[in-house]
Amino acid sequence: MSLSDGAAERLERQLRFVVELDKLKRTLRQTTLIDDSRHENSAEHSWHLAVMAILLEEYVEAPVDLPRVLKMVLVHDVIEIDAGDTFCYDAQANLDKEERERRAADRLFGLLPADQGAELRALWDEFEEGATPEARFAVALDRLQPLLQNVNGAGGTWRRHGISRAQVLRRMEPIRRAAPRLWPLVERHVEEACRAGWIVG
Amino acid sequence: MSLSDGAAERLERQLRFVVELDKLKRTLRQTTLIDDSRHENSAEHSWHLAVMAILLEEYVEAPVDLPRVLKMVLVHDVIEIDAGDTFCYDAQANLDKEERERRAADRLFGLLPADQGAELRALWDEFEEGATPEARFAVALDRLQPLLQNVNGAGGTWRRHGISRAQVLRRMEPIRRAAPRLWPLVERHVEEACRAGWIVG
Repeated sequence: MSLSDGAAERLERQLRFVVELDKLKRTLRQTTLIDDSRHENSAEHSWHLAVMAILLEEYVEAPVDLPRVLKMVLVHDVIEIDAGDTFCYDAQANLDKEERERRAADRLFGLLPADQGAELRALWDEFEEGATPEARFAVALDRLQPLLQNVNGAGGTWRRHGISRAQVLRRMEPIRRAAPRLWPLVERHVEEACRAGWIVG
Repeated sequence: MSLSDGAAERLERQLRFVVELDKLKRTLRQTTLIDDSRHENSAEHSWHLAVMAILLEEYVEAPVDLPRVLKMVLVHDVIEIDAGDTFCYDAQANLDKEERERRAADRLFGLLPADQGAELRALWDEFEEGATPEARFAVALDRLQPLLQNVNGAGGTWRRHGISRAQVLRRMEPIRRAAPRLWPLVERHVEEACRAGWIVG
């Protein structure tokens, strides 16, 4: 069975993108693994969010289409292949983040056949805008996962960068909105981290 | 808003599992990243399969429920947290693989609330049996991804371990069954790898 020219070009574009994805395994985040052995990369982080989405869907405030959430968290960091990971508490680096990431999205999703590139680009735009129930849940997971890394890893990025209680609570706010039943857990963890001296009170 | 005792215990079990998942980022596979900078881990590998499932669904021979495929590839290697990655071409290590992995599944999926543990365990069993269209597609992706790593990474595991053409083609057979339109691509890559001396002719 052989493919027509159009079909062969389509497959070639799909595989070019699949091969390009390998680079996200080399994009390092500020967050470290819980055993502090190394920094976490954005590919394994995205996997972690996807499994969390499956397990924690029951806590969402507004019903979500789980398959769309899964697709969204799986591709939400792909743009970091070009744009790199921008530390959320680094105000300077966040100034040109939007422009860097938009260019990255143009190039990376542009590798794919037009229909698939448009689908993934729309999911990424939706995540960035954070307005739909799916995007709100995805963003909440993207905040909860590093919190769990930090509290189970002796303070992690908070401790290393001298982050304050107010900064952390502001950063975690999307969890309160998307999954209010998880909020007491967040507050408890933040209080414990303050008492342990991992967060500046 | 606070949780009842039962709900609090449920959440605690879910989060214990989520925290345990972090260890899969330290489970190394034989496969290396395409730039050969390090071995790939099973968490980022699982992420790669999930994005591939989204992009390559159109090539399946029998229609699949994509959300189920996504869940399946996301959890298919979780048992490696305890059982480790078993190199597919290592006959000795494969002798007790099944028993090691079953014990790992019992412990790991047993961390979760019973309903969720049963769901993920069933997905893992289904993947291992490889009998449904979803499992066949998932297994095919699990074979295609390291092939792409190897052909784009100058031979990778094939070259390092002196793997033969017959071994590779046998290993790739699930792709022919699940997605026959991808098979010519597999054959072409194997022939190129033979010519390049990465696979023992």
